[in-house]
Amino acid sequence: MNYKIRALREKLKSLKLEGMIVSNPINIKYLTNIDPEIEGILLITRKENIYLTYTMFIEDVNKTLTIDDEIIVVDTRDVSKEEAENFFVFCENIGFEENYVTYEQFKRLKQRYRINNMAETDGIIEKQRMIKDEQEIQNIKKACEITDKCFEYLLTYIKEGVTEKEIALEIEMFFKKNGAEDLAFDTIVASGPNSSIPHWKPSDRKIQMADPILIDMGCKYNGYCSDMTRTIFMGCILEEIKPVYDLVLKNQQNVLEEMRSNYNIKNISRRVEDSFKFNNYNLIHGLGHGVGLEIHEMPNINSKNESFFKEDMVVTNEPGIYLPGKYGIRIEDTVLINKSYCTPLTKSNKGYVVI
Amino acid sequence: MNYKIRALREKLKSLKLEGMIVSNPINIKYLTNIDPEIEGILLITRKENIYLTYTMFIEDVNKTLTIDDEIIVVDTRDVSKEEAENFFVFCENIGFEENYVTYEQFKRLKQRYRINNMAETDGIIEKQRMIKDEQEIQNIKKACEITDKCFEYLLTYIKEGVTEKEIALEIEMFFKKNGAEDLAFDTIVASGPNSSIPHWKPSDRKIQMADPILIDMGCKYNGYCSDMTRTIFMGCILEEIKPVYDLVLKNQQNVLEEMRSNYNIKNISRRVEDSFKFNNYNLIHGLGHGVGLEIHEMPNINSKNESFFKEDMVVTNEPGIYLPGKYGIRIEDTVLINKSYCTPLTKSNKGYVVI
Repeated sequence: MNYKIRALREKLKSLKLEGMIVSNPINIKYLTNIDPEIEGILLITRKENIYLTYTMFIEDVNKTLTIDDEIIVVDTRDVSKEEAENFFVFCENIGFEENYVTYEQFKRLKQRYRINNMAETDGIIEKQRMIKDEQEIQNIKKACEITDKCFEYLLTYIKEGVTEKEIALEIEMFFKKNGAEDLAFDTIVASGPNSSIPHWKPSDRKIQMADPILIDMGCKYNGYCSDMTRTIFMGCILEEIKPVYDLVLKNQQNVLEEMRSNYNIKNISRRVEDSFKFNNYNLIHGLGHGVGLEIHEMPNINSKNESFFKEDMVVTNEPGIYLPGKYGIRIEDTVLINKSYCTPLTKSNKGYVVI
Repeated sequence: MNYKIRALREKLKSLKLEGMIVSNPINIKYLTNIDPEIEGILLITRKENIYLTYTMFIEDVNKTLTIDDEIIVVDTRDVSKEEAENFFVFCENIGFEENYVTYEQFKRLKQRYRINNMAETDGIIEKQRMIKDEQEIQNIKKACEITDKCFEYLLTYIKEGVTEKEIALEIEMFFKKNGAEDLAFDTIVASGPNSSIPHWKPSDRKIQMADPILIDMGCKYNGYCSDMTRTIFMGCILEEIKPVYDLVLKNQQNVLEEMRSNYNIKNISRRVEDSFKFNNYNLIHGLGHGVGLEIHEMPNINSKNESFFKEDMVVTNEPGIYLPGKYGIRIEDTVLINKSYCTPLTKSNKGYVVI
C-alpha cells in the first residue's frame, strides 16, 4: 500500500474509525495521484482501498495507479445495491469530509453504503497534506522556477501604456508555454492606486510613469502550486513609498530568518503585526498560508494559529501594507520549512526593481 | 424589489417556506448581480432581503446593487449573536441549498440563525434560472458572437504542425482580447484519433494532413456563457468520414427544426438516438444542456427528461458520433427557444470546413 494511504489508515484507527469515504478530488489526487478532473470516490474499507468511477475513466485511472498503491478500481455500474451495502458491513463509524460533502451527498452516501454513523473527520487528510514528501517538494520547486522565469521576462515586457489585463494575460501565456499546466490562481496585477486593494482584479488601466505595480502570480506543475508577489516600479520610486517598501521587506526578511521547524506560528505573525503597528500601519491579512495541491492549504499563518511550523511544510511569507487610494506594497515568497532554517523556493529580486 | 427576488418569494410562499438562505454565489449573482467572487450570503427573511458580507466587499457590493433591488447590505462583523438569531424569529421552515451547502455549513447555518427546520429546496433558484430575461439573452448572444468571431479567426490560424495545446491557448487569448472576461470552460481541441474521445484534453499532438479537428469552445460575457462545437478538417476529408459527418449534421439540423416551446425534451432526444441506432451508431452522451451563468445548467436534454422546452430557455444542441481510436464528429450550437421556433445563437459554418 502506498505510504500516504497507510498513514491515513493509522490515523483513522487511532480515531476509532473503521473506514472513510474520500470524496474531495484534491484529497484523492494526494492519496492516489488520480487527476482531480476524473469523477469518482475512494472508499477506505476495513481491508481494501476501492476507487469507484465511471466506465469512461477506467482506462485512464488504471494507467495512473501503480501496484504499490493497492487500490481496486471498480466501475460504478457493476456495483449492485447489495454490494454497495457490503463495503462497510459490520462497521460502526465511517469517516467522511464534512467540509466538502454537500448535505444532499451526505444523505445519499449514508443511505447507499448503509452506514450506521457517518463521522466527521476534521480535515484529517488536509492535515496530513501539510507535510510534503520529496516528490511533492520537487513539483513545487519546479512551479516556483517557472514563476521566477516569468518575473524575469516581465521586466522586459512591461512598458508604460500596457494595461493590467494585458500583463495578466502575458503571464498566463508565459506559464502555459513554459511547462506549467495552468495558473495556480487568478493573477493579480494592480498598478498605481489599485495596488492599495489587496485582491484587485486586473483592469484596463494603463501603466503610468512612477506607478508601483503589484504582481501576485503562481502556476501549477504536476498539480502543485507556486505563489509569489513582487511590487515593482515604472520609471522611478516615489520617495514617500521607500520607507514603506523598506518596512515590508525588512519584515519579510526577518520572518525568513525565523521560519523553521518547531517555531511558533502565532509569535512570528505577531512580531510582524507589532512592527507594523509601531510604524502606524496594520497587517490587514494573514501573513501566509500553506501551498501544495491547492493554493491555500493548511496551515494558516496568522496570530491566531497556536501550532508550530514543521519540517517539510511549504508555506508563503507575504507581509503587505496598503494605503487606501494611494498605493500598496506586498512581497511574498513560497518557502520550504527545514529543521533549523527555511529555504525560499521563489528567488526573484526583492530589492527596488525599477523598469 | 427586483422581479427575480419577487418571483422567488412567490415560489417560497407556495412551498410554505417563510424564508431562504442563499449561499451559492451563482444564485446570488442571478438574484442580485453581485460578482460570484465576492463572499457573502443572501437572507430572504419574511420582510427583508439582507446581504451579509465582509468589510472589504461592502463598497463594491453597494456599487452593484440598485434601489430597485431592495437589498440591505450588512457587514458581518456588525451582526451580534442575538441579531443573527432574530433574522428568522418565529419562522418554522427556512429553505437552503442542499446541493451546494456542505454538511458542516448546514450545521453552522442552522445554529447561527437558530432555525427550527432547514428545508431542502430542490433547485428552486436553478429552475427559475432556466427561463432567461432580455438582459440575460443579450449577454449570451454577445458571448456567442465572440465565439463565432473566434472560429473565423481559427480558420486562418490553424496550420499543419501547430499543436492542440497551441490552438487552445490561441482561443483563450482571442476571447480575452475580444471582450470576453474568461473561458466558459476548458477548451477541447481534439485532432485525428483524439477526436474519438468526447472529453479530450488538448495535448502536444501536432495537426496533420487529413486530420479531423474537433473544437469545443465557449467564453463568458458579463458572467454568461456560450458553447459551440465544430469539427473541421486539415487539407481534405477522408471519404469514410463523410457519411458520419452528414448523419450528425442532419440530426443536429432536424433537432433545430423541432426545438420550440412546449415540445417534449425526451422525444426530441429519442429521435436522435433512434436515427443513430438505425445506422449502427450510439449517442453516448446527452443531446444538450441549459446554458447561462453556468456552462451546464438545467434542463438536461436527454431521453430521460420528461419535461418540455419553454420559451426563453437557452440550451445546447450537440449530437456526436465517436469511433474509438479512429475519429469523432460533434456539431453543437447554443440555441434560444422561442414560441414556435428556435434561434441558433452560434452561427458558424456547419458544412464541410476544410482548411
